[in-house]
Amino acid sequence: MGKDIIADHARWPRLEDEIFKVNKECKEAIKEKGRDKIIDSTLGTLIDDNGNLVAFDSVYDTLKDMDKNSIASYAAIEGDQAYLDLLVDNCFGPYKPDAYIKAIATAGGTGAIRHSFWTFLNQGDYVICPNWYWPAYQTMCEEFDREFKTYEFLDQDFNFNLEEFTKTLDFALEKRDRVLCVFNSPANNPTGFSIDDAMWDKILDVIKKRAVSGKFITMLLDVAYIEFAGDGSQKKFFKKFSSLPENIITTVAYSMSKSYTAYGIRTGACIIISSNEDIADRTFDSMKHSNRSIWSNITHAGMNILVDIESDKSKKKSYEDELKENRQLLEKRARAFVENSKEVSLIHLPYFGGFFISIPCDKPKEVAEKLKEKDMYIVANKNGLRFAVCAVSEEKCIISPRLIKEAIDEVDK
Amino acid sequence: MGKDIIADHARWPRLEDEIFKVNKECKEAIKEKGRDKIIDSTLGTLIDDNGNLVAFDSVYDTLKDMDKNSIASYAAIEGDQAYLDLLVDNCFGPYKPDAYIKAIATAGGTGAIRHSFWTFLNQGDYVICPNWYWPAYQTMCEEFDREFKTYEFLDQDFNFNLEEFTKTLDFALEKRDRVLCVFNSPANNPTGFSIDDAMWDKILDVIKKRAVSGKFITMLLDVAYIEFAGDGSQKKFFKKFSSLPENIITTVAYSMSKSYTAYGIRTGACIIISSNEDIADRTFDSMKHSNRSIWSNITHAGMNILVDIESDKSKKKSYEDELKENRQLLEKRARAFVENSKEVSLIHLPYFGGFFISIPCDKPKEVAEKLKEKDMYIVANKNGLRFAVCAVSEEKCIISPRLIKEAIDEVDK
Repeated sequence: MGKDIIADHARWPRLEDEIFKVNKECKEAIKEKGRDKIIDSTLGTLIDDNGNLVAFDSVYDTLKDMDKNSIASYAAIEGDQAYLDLLVDNCFGPYKPDAYIKAIATAGGTGAIRHSFWTFLNQGDYVICPNWYWPAYQTMCEEFDREFKTYEFLDQDFNFNLEEFTKTLDFALEKRDRVLCVFNSPANNPTGFSIDDAMWDKILDVIKKRAVSGKFITMLLDVAYIEFAGDGSQKKFFKKFSSLPENIITTVAYSMSKSYTAYGIRTGACIIISSNEDIADRTFDSMKHSNRSIWSNITHAGMNILVDIESDKSKKKSYEDELKENRQLLEKRARAFVENSKEVSLIHLPYFGGFFISIPCDKPKEVAEKLKEKDMYIVANKNGLRFAVCAVSEEKCIISPRLIKEAIDEVDK
Repeated sequence: MGKDIIADHARWPRLEDEIFKVNKECKEAIKEKGRDKIIDSTLGTLIDDNGNLVAFDSVYDTLKDMDKNSIASYAAIEGDQAYLDLLVDNCFGPYKPDAYIKAIATAGGTGAIRHSFWTFLNQGDYVICPNWYWPAYQTMCEEFDREFKTYEFLDQDFNFNLEEFTKTLDFALEKRDRVLCVFNSPANNPTGFSIDDAMWDKILDVIKKRAVSGKFITMLLDVAYIEFAGDGSQKKFFKKFSSLPENIITTVAYSMSKSYTAYGIRTGACIIISSNEDIADRTFDSMKHSNRSIWSNITHAGMNILVDIESDKSKKKSYEDELKENRQLLEKRARAFVENSKEVSLIHLPYFGGFFISIPCDKPKEVAEKLKEKDMYIVANKNGLRFAVCAVSEEKCIISPRLIKEAIDEVDK
């Protein structure tokens, strides 16, 4: 590729949309053979047992009742204050860290991750991340010229691999003064794994020991699936981000996409946690500057939905009922998948909540191909398959493990 | 400021929101004295004569009638194809350039400007821009480490200052191989000025002459106000961006904010125009990579609104009627302001359309302060005052020139 009008730093091959491709094939198969016959494990949104997207009535009735001028008008560049305040309360529940906390509106969780990668790192600094991850982390590192380095997520007993994490952190800090650690927990995408509270203590010990003078460590907590990861106690770990040294900062990427079934509305926030008020304020200033520079402001209707629901007891009750009902739907599906995996000796990573369960395997692409012959359409990652409990009915979750096991065995032969 | 966890490149003072400040004071004055007594020229959105935001029924009825699943679901990363196709047709009307054209969804016009600054420039390259400009251009240049250089917008006869533009372009190209020229026309913010077709020919001649081998020139057409800048003929100039040399690229920042009164919905697009298909495609690839890295995808409801309106004759008719009615409202207000300016010998920059008229003056901040005593609240820029015909009733547009003239004279004394 010769020199041309596209600057070198901005040249990328077209993003391959593997999920889109397999989803398209799946749709064709459904058309041909009927929905009943096909297992569609391609999507990353919550789908009911009839194959329809779940869109909470509590959310969309609120939108439909909204005054049109509230939808049409601009929100504040940093997000409306009522929205940010309620979102912070909502995110932490009773486990708000003892720290200075500021929030800024972003385009979904993506925007909050972008802001964290941008603000706390220079070009060439490292983002370190488990090797089961959401691919957009890597895309962002490419875009902003940050190094992306992964480590083995789980050890042989399927616990968080503290040793590999520590090694990778040490590697990054030896090379550079700044590092950002991505933690997509609870209910990791694509595995459903959650780091438990005791492990969090160990992780924080490791990080605190390395936060010596001149080194700067960011912890990014991507909690996209947190509202589908338990009945409240999954938020306890937030309290641990209290009173940390000043050269450690924590940001939380909070998204309305999953928690309010508001994927297409593109509303979220970056929550900044620091034990130093000035650092929290100036991080906010930096991110407000970013807001103005990339999207000006965030979808007003999304903010208004959150405010309307969270400040109205009856709406809040309806919302919580829908959330609970759908969380239980997920739990039921996941239980069916896990139990039947045991039956057929299919190994999967530990699932604690969220939209996906991962099955480690060699040659995941070939296994996924093989599964098409069995009328199952599933996303293949680098290390395995991503089974979408968010999209597959309980009935089909029961039969899926056997199909997957067979396909793996057939490919291994 | 010592070394801390915020990376050097990301440290910015908190964005001062002058407009927000004067708007707040204005609201307080309205509360105290009544809406009739106060002239509110602070806003950048279309306000009817009763002080209410104009939000087209054709747009918001379409939203209210929309299936909730279409609002809740994710759009494609690059934007839905039907949306992009209809938006391109809509933007160009019958004046589509003879060139390879690709479009990608962005967060309003802002996102399209961001993409253009990002993709075609390296750090240290120049964005050149008239000295009456939307301040976010400068904020973006800071954020992405591009140089921002302005030139005198108009000559003494109030024509586009081709000489100053040429000098500045030459300066940038002497220092660097890449340059981006911002043209916020027709209906420039903050002046209402439009570059006419004959001047476009001259500008293009200058640019073509400088597009020698090894030099790369981007023209960014920010057409945020184009639907309020005439009855269609204001789009003729698009045809001129046909068959340009390959080292010139044109992007159009098209926004639904003003044209569909959809400010808060954050939907727009970057339209890429190149005479080389491969360059157009790879620019699209670059910008899709950016989309994934900063917001993942764009508000689905916004795209659906455009598709629903543009593909339904009766909805389209209602929309066009509302647009026309409000364009005429603006024209009436502007005429009142211009005629009465003549009466009192108030000098303003030529107005051809859009939301604002600019009054050049020394000490604009002091004049704006003085105007508060006369119950007028107005935004002061570096070079003058921004009068918001979008927000002030015809009746008040009649009396405003005299008040402004008096304030300027009092400050000059």
